[in-house]
Amino acid sequence: MKGKLGFACDYMKGAHPSVMEKMMETNMMETIGYGRDEVTEEARDLVRKACDCPKALVEFLIGGTQTNAVMIDAFLRSYQGVIAADTGHISIHEAGAIEASGHKVITLPHSEGKITARQVKEYLENYYNDDSYEHMVIPGMIYLSQPTEYGTLYSLEELKGFRQVCDEYDIPLYIDGARLAYALGCPDNDVTLKDLACVCDAFYIGGTKCGLLFGEAVVIPDPEAIPHLFTTIKQHGALLAKGRLLGVQFAELFRNGLYYEIGKHAMEAAERIKNALKEKGYRFKIDSPTNQIFCIMDNEALKGFGERVEYTFWEKYDDTHTVIRLATDWGTTDEEVDALIDVL
Amino acid sequence: MKGKLGFACDYMKGAHPSVMEKMMETNMMETIGYGRDEVTEEARDLVRKACDCPKALVEFLIGGTQTNAVMIDAFLRSYQGVIAADTGHISIHEAGAIEASGHKVITLPHSEGKITARQVKEYLENYYNDDSYEHMVIPGMIYLSQPTEYGTLYSLEELKGFRQVCDEYDIPLYIDGARLAYALGCPDNDVTLKDLACVCDAFYIGGTKCGLLFGEAVVIPDPEAIPHLFTTIKQHGALLAKGRLLGVQFAELFRNGLYYEIGKHAMEAAERIKNALKEKGYRFKIDSPTNQIFCIMDNEALKGFGERVEYTFWEKYDDTHTVIRLATDWGTTDEEVDALIDVL
Amino acid sequence: MKGKLGFACDYMKGAHPSVMEKMMETNMMETIGYGRDEVTEEARDLVRKACDCPKALVEFLIGGTQTNAVMIDAFLRSYQGVIAADTGHISIHEAGAIEASGHKVITLPHSEGKITARQVKEYLENYYNDDSYEHMVIPGMIYLSQPTEYGTLYSLEELKGFRQVCDEYDIPLYIDGARLAYALGCPDNDVTLKDLACVCDAFYIGGTKCGLLFGEAVVIPDPEAIPHLFTTIKQHGALLAKGRLLGVQFAELFRNGLYYEIGKHAMEAAERIKNALKEKGYRFKIDSPTNQIFCIMDNEALKGFGERVEYTFWEKYDDTHTVIRLATDWGTTDEEVDALIDVL
Amino acid sequence: MKGKLGFACDYMKGAHPSVMEKMMETNMMETIGYGRDEVTEEARDLVRKACDCPKALVEFLIGGTQTNAVMIDAFLRSYQGVIAADTGHISIHEAGAIEASGHKVITLPHSEGKITARQVKEYLENYYNDDSYEHMVIPGMIYLSQPTEYGTLYSLEELKGFRQVCDEYDIPLYIDGARLAYALGCPDNDVTLKDLACVCDAFYIGGTKCGLLFGEAVVIPDPEAIPHLFTTIKQHGALLAKGRLLGVQFAELFRNGLYYEIGKHAMEAAERIKNALKEKGYRFKIDSPTNQIFCIMDNEALKGFGERVEYTFWEKYDDTHTVIRLATDWGTTDEEVDALIDVL
Repeated sequence: MKGKLGFACDYMKGAHPSVMEKMMETNMMETIGYGRDEVTEEARDLVRKACDCPKALVEFLIGGTQTNAVMIDAFLRSYQGVIAADTGHISIHEAGAIEASGHKVITLPHSEGKITARQVKEYLENYYNDDSYEHMVIPGMIYLSQPTEYGTLYSLEELKGFRQVCDEYDIPLYIDGARLAYALGCPDNDVTLKDLACVCDAFYIGGTKCGLLFGEAVVIPDPEAIPHLFTTIKQHGALLAKGRLLGVQFAELFRNGLYYEIGKHAMEAAERIKNALKEKGYRFKIDSPTNQIFCIMDNEALKGFGERVEYTFWEKYDDTHTVIRLATDWGTTDEEVDALIDVL
Repeated sequence: MKGKLGFACDYMKGAHPSVMEKMMETNMMETIGYGRDEVTEEARDLVRKACDCPKALVEFLIGGTQTNAVMIDAFLRSYQGVIAADTGHISIHEAGAIEASGHKVITLPHSEGKITARQVKEYLENYYNDDSYEHMVIPGMIYLSQPTEYGTLYSLEELKGFRQVCDEYDIPLYIDGARLAYALGCPDNDVTLKDLACVCDAFYIGGTKCGLLFGEAVVIPDPEAIPHLFTTIKQHGALLAKGRLLGVQFAELFRNGLYYEIGKHAMEAAERIKNALKEKGYRFKIDSPTNQIFCIMDNEALKGFGERVEYTFWEKYDDTHTVIRLATDWGTTDEEVDALIDVL
Repeated sequence: MKGKLGFACDYMKGAHPSVMEKMMETNMMETIGYGRDEVTEEARDLVRKACDCPKALVEFLIGGTQTNAVMIDAFLRSYQGVIAADTGHISIHEAGAIEASGHKVITLPHSEGKITARQVKEYLENYYNDDSYEHMVIPGMIYLSQPTEYGTLYSLEELKGFRQVCDEYDIPLYIDGARLAYALGCPDNDVTLKDLACVCDAFYIGGTKCGLLFGEAVVIPDPEAIPHLFTTIKQHGALLAKGRLLGVQFAELFRNGLYYEIGKHAMEAAERIKNALKEKGYRFKIDSPTNQIFCIMDNEALKGFGERVEYTFWEKYDDTHTVIRLATDWGTTDEEVDALIDVL
Repeated sequence: MKGKLGFACDYMKGAHPSVMEKMMETNMMETIGYGRDEVTEEARDLVRKACDCPKALVEFLIGGTQTNAVMIDAFLRSYQGVIAADTGHISIHEAGAIEASGHKVITLPHSEGKITARQVKEYLENYYNDDSYEHMVIPGMIYLSQPTEYGTLYSLEELKGFRQVCDEYDIPLYIDGARLAYALGCPDNDVTLKDLACVCDAFYIGGTKCGLLFGEAVVIPDPEAIPHLFTTIKQHGALLAKGRLLGVQFAELFRNGLYYEIGKHAMEAAERIKNALKEKGYRFKIDSPTNQIFCIMDNEALKGFGERVEYTFWEKYDDTHTVIRLATDWGTTDEEVDALIDVL
C-alpha cells in the first residue's frame, strides 16, 4: 500500500479527525457500560433529532454485518425469511450470518443492485397463491440497501412503493445504510433521514464507512416494534462493554452536521473522478451516482494503473477488459484526487 | 457518577493513555481491512512471542461474549455442548449466545467460581456409562475462566489436571481470559501465558477490561485445530472492518510489556484496598486474590458509602448485610485508592 | 428379549389392536397429505371434544422430543428460554433439541421430578430484580411434564398456581403429556383434559407411549396464540406426508374412550405390582403413583431377576443396592403381571 | 376426493399391502426402542446388500425434509452451505429447514430440475478465485435429487462428473432419493443402488412415496464419515421411539425385491398414460422419464378433467393453457389407468 493512492474502499483510514479528538477528550471519563451512559444518551437524542423522530428507539452497534444479523433476527419469527436483492450484502457477503440465526434470505434478481416494489409484490402474490405456500419460508421482511452495493440509489417515490407493499402484507421494511452519508451527500438523492424514518420500520446510519472508527446507528421509529432489543444485541455478541465509545462518535457526527459534510466531501471527490474518467473516454459498468465508481479498464492499462493506485477488482468485463471499483470517502484529499486523475 | 469514586467495574474508562496515543498516531494510515494489515500482523507476532508459541493462530475480536460464542461455535459440532461452571460467564451472562448458535452449556456446581478436573472427569464417566448417553448432548469442550467470575485463580497444577481429562476424552480446553492481566499481575498466580499456550487448545487474552478501548486476542496454539476461523468470525458479525484498530491496540499492549504493568498496577491498588478493609474489620464473601474484591457491608453503612463510591451490588448477605464488589483496573489512581480508604 | 417379561419401558410393542385394525381398514383410502384430510379433521374434533375446548387448535406430531422442540420454538422469541425442572425431558434427554433451535433451558432443582410455582415465581422475581437481567436469557415459558419423568403428578391446585405465575409474568404454560393416559388413569389424579385446556397455553396428549404406533396430539386452546404453526412444523421436519396416519390413530383413541381405558388398564397392572412389591418388603425410591415403578433391589437378587425380566437401570442406590424402573402399559397382560410377581 | 381418480401425488394411500401385513404380524413383538432391535438390524443388512456396500452405515428416518435436514446438518460445519438446484426440494419446499439449522442453500439455476457438474465446478472456481471468498458461506456439500423434483434423471456418467468435482474440492455428494424406486424402475435409468453407494458420500432410499407408511433409509458408505449420527438424529427430533416400525417396513421392501417391483409397476402405469397422452396430441412441459407426468392442458378441457381426476396444478403455461402434474405410484391400478385414459 506504501506510496499508492488508496481508492480501494471506504474503510482504509481510521476516523475523521474531529471524531478522534472527541475520543481523546473523553478517554478518561468514567461512565457505566453498555451504552447506558449520558454521552450515548446525547448521541441518541441527536440522531432522533436528525431523523425528526423524537420517539425513535436508537441503538448503536459496531459493524454492518452484525447490525443486519441483529435487526433481521429481532424482527423475524423463526418461520420467516427476508426478501433481498440477489446482490444484497446479506445475500452474499455476510458469510451466512442471517442463515446462522435461522433465517432464509429470499433473493430477487437485481438491476444495478436494486429491486423494485413491483417485483416484491409479485413475489408475495405468487407466494400466497401457491397451493403449497405453507411449505415454504414465510416472507417476513424486506431488506434494501441505500445506497446499494452497486452505488445506486432508491428514490423517495420508489421507497414509498415498497412501503405500500409492506403495509399491504404487514411486513417491515428495513434499510441498510452502511454508506448512507454518501447517499445523503449525493446531488441525485431525494431521500432524507426524516424520509427514512417515515418510510421504514428500521434502518441504520452507517458510521464505519462514513468517518468513524466503527459504529452503526440503528433507528426504529416505533420503539415498541421490537421488544428486548438490548438482550438480542447481547445474545449476538454485539454489545460493546464501553458502549460510550459509540455514543462519543455518533454524537460528534450529528452535533454539527459532520455526517452531511462527510457525504458531500466524498461526493465532490467522486464527481471530479467521474468527470475525468468520462473526459478520457472511460466507460462505466454501473451508473453509480454515489461514492463508488465502477469503470471499465483495458487489461494492459490496468497493469500500470495498479502500480500507482489501490483499487478493487469488481469483475471480468470481457477478454481484454476488467471492471474495477474506485471509492472515495471522508478522508479522500484533493491531492489524492489530482494524483489519481494524473494517472488516468 | 459525577464526583463519586469509580470502583464499580473495570470498564468505566476508555483506554490506557499509551494505547490512545497509538490510535491517534496511526489514525490516517491506509491499510486493507479485516485484520490483514501489517500492524495487525505485528500484533499477532508480539502475542505469539509473549506466549512463546511461534506457530499459534492469533485472531483479534471485539468483546468477551462475542469471543466465547465464536470460539465455542468454532470448536463444537452441532451435537456437542460445552462444560462450564454454573457461575461461568457463558452460563449466565451472555443472554444465551452459546445456545443461540445451537450449543448447550452443561453446568457443574462451582466452588468460589471454580470447578475441578475431578468434577469434569466424573461427569464424563457418568455420561459415557449412562445407557442413554446418546440421547444427551455430547460434552465436546471444557470452558474455564482465568481469573474466574469470582476473582479466583486456577493453579498450573489444576489446569494440568483439566488437560489430562481433556486428553483422555479427546476434547478441547478453552479458557476465557477476560481479566487475564489481573491474573498475570497477581502474586498468587503461577500460570503464565506460555503455560496457557501449553495447556489449552485455545484461550483469549482480554483487552476490554485490561486497558484497551475494546478487544480480545484469541490464541490457538495448533493453527490447524479449527479451520476457517475467519469465516466463522465473519458469520458471527464479529469481524471488524477496520481490523487494524485491534492490531494497533494489542501491539501496544505487548510491545514493551504494558499488559503486565497494567495487571501489576491494578493488583497493587487492590492489595491496598483489601488490606485496609481487613484492618477495619470488614469480612470478605469470596477470597479473591485478583482485582475484584467481594466484601460484606452493613446495610446502614452502605448508604453513606454509596454516596461517595460507585460499587456493584453482588448479593444479599443477610437481613442487615450486603455483599458488594469493588474492582480496580489499569486506570485506578493512588489518589482514588486513598480516597476510598478514607471512606471506609 | 426372547422369553423375558417386558417391563423395561412403555414403548416396546406396536399399537393397541383396535388402532392397528383401523390402520388396516383405512390403508387403501386416498386422501390429500399433511393432515388436511377428513380423518384427521375428525380426530381434531374428537380431541377438542375430549378437552371440552371447541376452538382449540389441534395438531398431530410424531414423537415427544419433536413435539417439545416444535412447540417451544413456536412460542418463544429468539431472546427467550424455557424454565424446566432439571430432570425435565427437555433438560436432559433430548440431545440439545431445544438449544439447537436457539433456546436455553433454564433449570430449577426438582423434587421427585416436580418443581413448584413458588420456585418459578422466585426465579422470575430474582431475575427481574437483578441489575443485569437484560444480559441474561429472558424466561419466556414454563415447561412441566404430567406425569413427570419420575412418575409423579401435579395436582390441579398446583397447576393453578403455575397459571397464576404465568399470568403475572405474561408467559405461557406448556405441559408435556408423553404419558398422559397414565395420569388420567391414576386414582390419585385430579386433573382432567378439560382442566389442562383451562390451565395451559398448550399441552400434548401422548400417543407413542399410550397405545399408538407413534403420535402426539398438541392442543392449543387459543388458536391465535401461535401463528403459522404448520410452517414451523414443516421447518422442524416434523410434518408427516401421510398425515392421515396420525388422524386415524387419534380418532380411534378418542372415539370411544380408548385413551382412558388404556390408562386404567396400565394403572391396574401397576397397582398390582406395587402391592406385591410392598408385601414382599421392597422399598421404593420414588413414590410414583403412575405406571412407572422405581424400586430398590438388592444387587445379588437383581442378577436372577434380570434373567427373567426386562427392566431399566435407574441409578445406583448404595454399594449393595440398585434402583430399577419397571413400567406397565396398554399392552401389559394379567399373565405378565402374575409372572412378574412370581419372580419377586 | 370421493369418486375421483387419484393422480395428484404419490402419497395418497397408506402402505403396500405386504408391508401392512408385516406391520400386523409384528405388532405385538416386544423389542427395545430407537432402532436398536433385531428387525431393524435385519433391514440394515438387507439395504447394505441391495447397495453391495457391506460396511455402510444405514439409518432409518421418517420423512424427506427431516432426512435432508439431518444429513446436511450432520455433514456440514457451521460455516458451510450446501449447493443445490434452485428447484431443489431443500431450496424451496422445506420451509427453511436447512437454514433453521444454520446453513445456507446456495442455489444454481436448473435445467428441467437438473444442474451440471460443470456448473458446480465453475461456481467453486469462481468462489475460490474471489478475493473476498472468506466473507461468503463456504460451499461444503452438493445436493442432488434422483429423480429430480421435475421427474428427470441423472445418468451414471453425470453423477461421476459430480463425484470428480467433489473429489477435487473435497466436499461430499449427497443424493435425495425420495422417489428413488421410480428411478430404479425406469427403463431410461442406468444408475443402480450400488452405483449410488460408489458415487455418493450419502444418499437416501425413499420409502414414503414408494410404498411405505413413512420412512427413508439413509446410506452412508463410509461409516466413519459422520460421527454421532444417532445423537444428531435425536437432536433433530427425528428419532422414532418404536424404531422397529421403520425396520419392519424396509426389511419388507428389500427382502424379496419389493422396492424394484413397486418402481416397475408405477413406471408401467406412467408409460401407458404418457403414450395415451401423446396419441391424443397432448404436449409435455417437461420430458420426465419417471412417474411424474407434466402435461399441458387446455383450460376449458381442464375443468371437465378436474371433475373426474385429482391432479396437481403445476404452473400457468399461457393464457389458455395450464401445466398439470399427474403421478403414478405403487398403488395405481390398471383400472385407474384405464379410467384416466378414458377421460382424456
